[in-house]
Amino acid sequence: MSQPLRLGIAGLGTVGIGVVKIIRRQAALLEARTGRPIEIVAVSARDASKDRGVSLSGYAWETDPVALAKRDDVDVFVELMGGHEGPAKDATEAALATGKDVVTANKALLAHHGQALAETAEAAGKVIRFEAAVAGGIPVIKSLTEGLAGNEITRVMGVMNGTCNYILTRMQDAGLPYDEVFEEANQLGYLEADPNLDVGGIDAGHKLSLLSSIAFGTKVNFDGVELEGIQRISIEDINQAASMGFKIKLLGVAQLTGRGLEQRMSPCLVPADSPLGQLKGGTNMVVIEGDAVEQVVLRGPGAGEGPTASAVMGDVCDLARGFRVATFGQPAAGLKDVPTASSNSPAPYYLRTSLLDRPGAMAKIATALGDAGVSIDRMRQTQHDSSEAPVIIVTHKTQRRQLEEAIAAMRASDVMASEPVALRIETV
Amino acid sequence: MSQPLRLGIAGLGTVGIGVVKIIRRQAALLEARTGRPIEIVAVSARDASKDRGVSLSGYAWETDPVALAKRDDVDVFVELMGGHEGPAKDATEAALATGKDVVTANKALLAHHGQALAETAEAAGKVIRFEAAVAGGIPVIKSLTEGLAGNEITRVMGVMNGTCNYILTRMQDAGLPYDEVFEEANQLGYLEADPNLDVGGIDAGHKLSLLSSIAFGTKVNFDGVELEGIQRISIEDINQAASMGFKIKLLGVAQLTGRGLEQRMSPCLVPADSPLGQLKGGTNMVVIEGDAVEQVVLRGPGAGEGPTASAVMGDVCDLARGFRVATFGQPAAGLKDVPTASSNSPAPYYLRTSLLDRPGAMAKIATALGDAGVSIDRMRQTQHDSSEAPVIIVTHKTQRRQLEEAIAAMRASDVMASEPVALRIETV
Repeated sequence: MSQPLRLGIAGLGTVGIGVVKIIRRQAALLEARTGRPIEIVAVSARDASKDRGVSLSGYAWETDPVALAKRDDVDVFVELMGGHEGPAKDATEAALATGKDVVTANKALLAHHGQALAETAEAAGKVIRFEAAVAGGIPVIKSLTEGLAGNEITRVMGVMNGTCNYILTRMQDAGLPYDEVFEEANQLGYLEADPNLDVGGIDAGHKLSLLSSIAFGTKVNFDGVELEGIQRISIEDINQAASMGFKIKLLGVAQLTGRGLEQRMSPCLVPADSPLGQLKGGTNMVVIEGDAVEQVVLRGPGAGEGPTASAVMGDVCDLARGFRVATFGQPAAGLKDVPTASSNSPAPYYLRTSLLDRPGAMAKIATALGDAGVSIDRMRQTQHDSSEAPVIIVTHKTQRRQLEEAIAAMRASDVMASEPVALRIETV
Repeated sequence: MSQPLRLGIAGLGTVGIGVVKIIRRQAALLEARTGRPIEIVAVSARDASKDRGVSLSGYAWETDPVALAKRDDVDVFVELMGGHEGPAKDATEAALATGKDVVTANKALLAHHGQALAETAEAAGKVIRFEAAVAGGIPVIKSLTEGLAGNEITRVMGVMNGTCNYILTRMQDAGLPYDEVFEEANQLGYLEADPNLDVGGIDAGHKLSLLSSIAFGTKVNFDGVELEGIQRISIEDINQAASMGFKIKLLGVAQLTGRGLEQRMSPCLVPADSPLGQLKGGTNMVVIEGDAVEQVVLRGPGAGEGPTASAVMGDVCDLARGFRVATFGQPAAGLKDVPTASSNSPAPYYLRTSLLDRPGAMAKIATALGDAGVSIDRMRQTQHDSSEAPVIIVTHKTQRRQLEEAIAAMRASDVMASEPVALRIETV
C-alpha cells in the first residue's frame, strides 16, 4: 500500500470541521481517487474542550499551531485559522521551513504576503495551494492555473463576496434599507468580525488580487485594487437600477493593459438578465476570458462548510497525487512587477444625487457634466416632497476621470443637497 | 534548461490548427507556466498540400498517424482526427504501446473503447487526457476529476451539443420549423458528416457517458445512455413551452441510484429564466452536484478552434508539469461495472399530440392518463382549422413508465391523429 498523506489541520471552525467530516466519510473514495490514504494526524484550535459535533479523539492535539506545523509526522499543513498576521502567518512559515506543503483558505494572508510566502515555498520545493481562498466551492484557481493554462488571460471578473451579495439581494427582495439588512446579516453571523472586510470590499479585493496574479503572471498587488464598498448603496439605487433593467453587484474586474494592471472591486450595475445579474444570495460567479477560450463562467456556493471544505480537499487530493503546481501558477521569482493602472476604460455610469429645489439647479448639473465631456443618456428627477430633489442620471460611455471632474464641478456649485453616488454599468 | 515536451499531432482540422497556433503564439508563456518548452516535432493529416493558414514546415510530416504515434521523438500523441474506429483507434493504441501519453478530443473513441484504452494506458504507466472531448473550452473534466475530488458526486447534468442548441435557439428566435433550421445548420457546416451524431443526441450521449464514468467511478457505459434526439421537436413545441415559461434543451442527466446508473440525453423543458434555459447557440453548460460542494455550474463555448484548442492545451500543460491523473480519475481496473437503470424518477411531463376532431376524443385521452395514474396539471386544445385538434398536456409529477402506459392506451384508442411527443420537465 502507498504511504498515507498525513495532514495537520490548524483551525477547527466551520471549514476545518467540514474537512474532518469529508476525510472520515469518504476515506475509501479519496484513496481510490488519489491512490493513497489521506489521514489526519494532528489538529489545533483555541478551545480543546468545545464540542464540535465530530470526534477528534483519534488525532493528536496541539494548542500551538506553530508546533502543529513543525511536527515530523505531518506532510501537509492545512491552515484554516484566518488572519493575515499572527498565528496563521507564523504557522505557515513554520510549515514551509520544515518542509511541508501548505493548503490554506486564507485570502488575507496571501493577499498581503503571497509573494514572500510563495518564494519561501519554492525555495523549499513546496507549494501553497489555496483553492478555498477564492469563491468557495468553485474550482476557479485550478481552472485558471491548469485548465486554462494554454490561454493568455485577457480579463477576470467576478462576484466573490457572498455576504455583500446577500445584502444587496435581500435589500431588493424585501425592499429594506441597507442599515436594516446589514443588522440582519450581522445577527445571522454572515459578517466577519470586522464587517468592513465584507461590506468595504476588502475580502473580495483580496480574492481578486490572487486571481490577477495567476491570470497575468504578476506579483500579488492587493494595494493596487481600487476598492469601493457597498455601504452607500441605497434601496433607492437598487430600485432605480431595477426599473432600468439592472441589478447592483459588488463586482471585481482585473485586466492587464499597456498602462499596467487594472484591478477594481466596486458596486456596479449589471443587466438583470445576465448571469451576473441573476446571482442570488451567497452564490459566487467568476468570469474568465482568454485569447483562445473566449469566455468561461463558473458559478457555485461562495462559502459554507461543505463547499469550502470541498475546495480544501481538491488541493489535498492534488498533493496526495503528487501534483504540485507553483503557488501562483508559475515560479514566484518570475512573476512580474507591473505598475498599477487606474481603471479608466470608458463605460456608462449611473449617478444619483439630490439637488436643492431651486431654479437652475438641474441646469448647473447638466452643465457640469457637459463641460467635463460627459454626455447624458437618461436623466430623471423623481417626485419629492422635501426641499431636496432626487436626480438619477445615466451617462453615455465616459472615462471615470471625466466623471470625477464633473462631480467635482457639481460639488463646487451651490445646488447639491447630497454627495453623489456614481456606479459603473458593466454590460458583460 | 528542462527537457522540452515533444508533441506529435495527428489531425490538422480546426482544432489541430488551433493547437499549433497556440503553441507558436504562446511559447514563452507556456514555458513559464509549465517549466519546460512545449514543442511540436511531427504532424499528420490526410492532405499534405492543403494550405492551412499556418506554416508547418518546421515539423516532420507523417502520412500515417500510426507511424506518427510510434515515433521515438514524440512524448505525447495528440489525437485530433476523430472517429471511434480506424486510424484514431489504431494510432492511440500504437502511442500507448510505445510509451506515450495521449491527449485527445475524441469522445466517440472513448465512449466506445474508453475502458480498454484506459487499462492499456495504465499498464504502460501512461494516461489518456480528454478535456477537449467534453464541453469544448470548459475545464469540466479537470473540475470533476481533480477540483471536486473530495466529493461524492450525486448528479451531473448538461447541455453539451452546441449544434442542437443552435438549432433549438434558432427555431425559437426566427420562428422557423426544424427542417429549415436543420438545413441552415448543414449549410453553415455545423453538422457532423453523419448529422444523427448531433441531432440524434449521440455525440452528447458520448460526452455524458465519459462524465458519468469519472463522476461515479463506473466503467464507461455509452450503451446505457437513454438517447432521444431533437428531430421530433416542432416549432409548436417550442412556442407552447415558451408560453408556459420554458425552453427546450437537449439535456443530459446522469446519476447513480440504488437501482444502478441512470443516464439519459433527451430534449427537456427547463425554466426559461434558469441558467440552462438561458443558454444560447453553441454555448455549453455542465452542472455538477456533490455531497460537499452542493452545486457548481460551468459555462463556456462548446466548440470552435480556440476553445477546443484551449482544452487540448490544458491537458498538454498538465503532462508538461508531470501531472498524470488516471484516465477516468481513478485506476481503470477499479472502475465499477454497475447495472443500467432506466431513468424513472418522477417528473412533470409535457405531452403534445393531436386528436381526430370527434366527440369524446378528449375524454378518451384523459381517461388513458387517469387509468395509468397520471394526473393532469394543465390541458389545452389549441385552435385548429383541420380535422385534427392539437392538444397540449402538462402532467403532474409522474414516472416515465406510467406515462408510457398512458401513451400506449392512447395509441390503442381510435382518436389519435399523430404520435405523441413527450418531454420531461426539469426544474433544476
